[in-house]
Amino acid sequence: MRLALDAMGGDHAPEANLEGAALFARENPDVELVLVGDEARVRAPRLTNVRVRHATQVVAMDEHATAAIRKKKDSSLRVCFELLKAGEADAMVSAGNSGAVMAGALLVLGRIPGVERPAFAALFPALGRRGRSLLLDAGANVDCKPTHLAQFAVMGDAYVRKLLGVARPRVGLLSNGEEDTKGTSLTREALALLRKSNLEFRGYVEGKDIFSGEVEVVVTDGFTGNVVLKASEGTAMAMASLVRSAVEKSGLSERLGALLLKPTLAGLRKMVDYAEYGGAPLLGVGGVAVVAHGRSNARAIQKALEAAKQTVEAELQADLCAGIERARAWLPKRAEARAAEEA
Amino acid sequence: MRLALDAMGGDHAPEANLEGAALFARENPDVELVLVGDEARVRAPRLTNVRVRHATQVVAMDEHATAAIRKKKDSSLRVCFELLKAGEADAMVSAGNSGAVMAGALLVLGRIPGVERPAFAALFPALGRRGRSLLLDAGANVDCKPTHLAQFAVMGDAYVRKLLGVARPRVGLLSNGEEDTKGTSLTREALALLRKSNLEFRGYVEGKDIFSGEVEVVVTDGFTGNVVLKASEGTAMAMASLVRSAVEKSGLSERLGALLLKPTLAGLRKMVDYAEYGGAPLLGVGGVAVVAHGRSNARAIQKALEAAKQTVEAELQADLCAGIERARAWLPKRAEARAAEEA
Repeated sequence: MRLALDAMGGDHAPEANLEGAALFARENPDVELVLVGDEARVRAPRLTNVRVRHATQVVAMDEHATAAIRKKKDSSLRVCFELLKAGEADAMVSAGNSGAVMAGALLVLGRIPGVERPAFAALFPALGRRGRSLLLDAGANVDCKPTHLAQFAVMGDAYVRKLLGVARPRVGLLSNGEEDTKGTSLTREALALLRKSNLEFRGYVEGKDIFSGEVEVVVTDGFTGNVVLKASEGTAMAMASLVRSAVEKSGLSERLGALLLKPTLAGLRKMVDYAEYGGAPLLGVGGVAVVAHGRSNARAIQKALEAAKQTVEAELQADLCAGIERARAWLPKRAEARAAEEA
Repeated sequence: MRLALDAMGGDHAPEANLEGAALFARENPDVELVLVGDEARVRAPRLTNVRVRHATQVVAMDEHATAAIRKKKDSSLRVCFELLKAGEADAMVSAGNSGAVMAGALLVLGRIPGVERPAFAALFPALGRRGRSLLLDAGANVDCKPTHLAQFAVMGDAYVRKLLGVARPRVGLLSNGEEDTKGTSLTREALALLRKSNLEFRGYVEGKDIFSGEVEVVVTDGFTGNVVLKASEGTAMAMASLVRSAVEKSGLSERLGALLLKPTLAGLRKMVDYAEYGGAPLLGVGGVAVVAHGRSNARAIQKALEAAKQTVEAELQADLCAGIERARAWLPKRAEARAAEEA
């Protein structure tokens, strides 16, 4: 297996990216890692499974995504996608401009046949047996149609089956209440569509159910999904900060406090970790692409590379194709037609 | 001051409501409390400042809000509003059907002149000096227009000035990124409007900024606001649950653990308290109405009564009127016209 890492993307690139790459490469000697970026700044760690692929340009965090990916043909981000397309890499990871990741994936890799819109999928910690739930779209598409939400459900179902090993994932549609009369015209149309699906669809769920373990897949539009993702990260960060300052004020000596609070802090870390280190796969494009947080440190890069590796190992792409194919039975025909047109 | 409590509203009514009323009444001997509900089930505590006002009907949690409030003229919820309208109460509190609270407020009290849509305002814990931020709309209006969001900003500004004592509250518009190009057509139009406002408007903010202390007022539509509110509650609850189970597994004796972890848990409680006990005032209607959580226990009812009392003491209604009046200078004229029509 070979993974391409955008060495120049992210707030702490390339240093954090290189360090994260080294952490990953040492633990995964069977995986080849290609660091894509300016060779003057990207020094590969002295490991036999890591090499550098020179790229002269960088897509900045605040650049217009589509324009940048079109113009900067030798940017580290675009070259990652070109490696995927050429079969020289099995997956790519970037902590750069997520809009540009989406634009690059669409331009270079295209979509899985039948998929109208790809979606960022974000893993959340949840109570219950599995300890995880998947929310999508976490920010790729601000304006969604009902068929987009229905396809997100199909892709989320495939991901959770394969990556979390849930035989029949329960799927919920995010809304402002559980009754069918709630929601917007978008969610109500998607609700009607998903009731006809072959998925284990549980109807509307509320914001709290992302964490309650009621469902494994939470479907929403990219605007709401992004706001919710960042609000939950904010809650976790604020709680951790409150606990830290409480410990500081408690008068316990630092060492004693740290010792006694270790199990407590371990519980907290589960939540904060997801906020700091969660990478999001972009589902629905013609290859495995994982976006890490813009503020990724070395550990976050390492985690995102692990996520990419697991996704390749699981052969998720085949399941996504099959899932979308099966969904033709209940998705409106015009969705197919539109996808064919847009493709 | 006299407060009306819907004794029959909420999952644990009337028992939790009566207990919460007693807690509040004992601490506030100067405030008269009217418990509205079925006198066969609503027993007033033996306190001179509490009495019962009989009402034969109850609006159920799952009833159609507008139909219920129109038909059930002698419901505990509607009678609360009638008391406000007759000047026999200065504020009302209900843990019942929040849609019906909104419908009742609109039908019986009407709107503050110029207000197009009332909004539920939710207080969040936040880092920074004030320790609080106000998010609105937290769920009253699923479909919003840009002028609605602009008016929410005006009402939030007034609330934070008066209730949190911030001289010039910073206002942010919730979006999926900070750049002006982000957001939906709704948020982009609202952004343009608010840039012309007389408020301390800081442009787009992200979900994390609800807790970061960057702004004191966070404006959004009622669908997104409700999902975010419940997702943040879910995060806080899940974190608290993780910490509790970590403590249980830690092997510390319960008593020792409790003692040592007290300051930590106090920090956590701040976050969980808001999730469990936060009441939301309905801003923009012709009276002070506070909605408590449907699952309110006695303490939550007590807290909501305190919030109602503080809102009356602060004479917030006058400030809301004045704020909306001043906003006529920069809000589009058609907004006024539409409000006049709808009123």
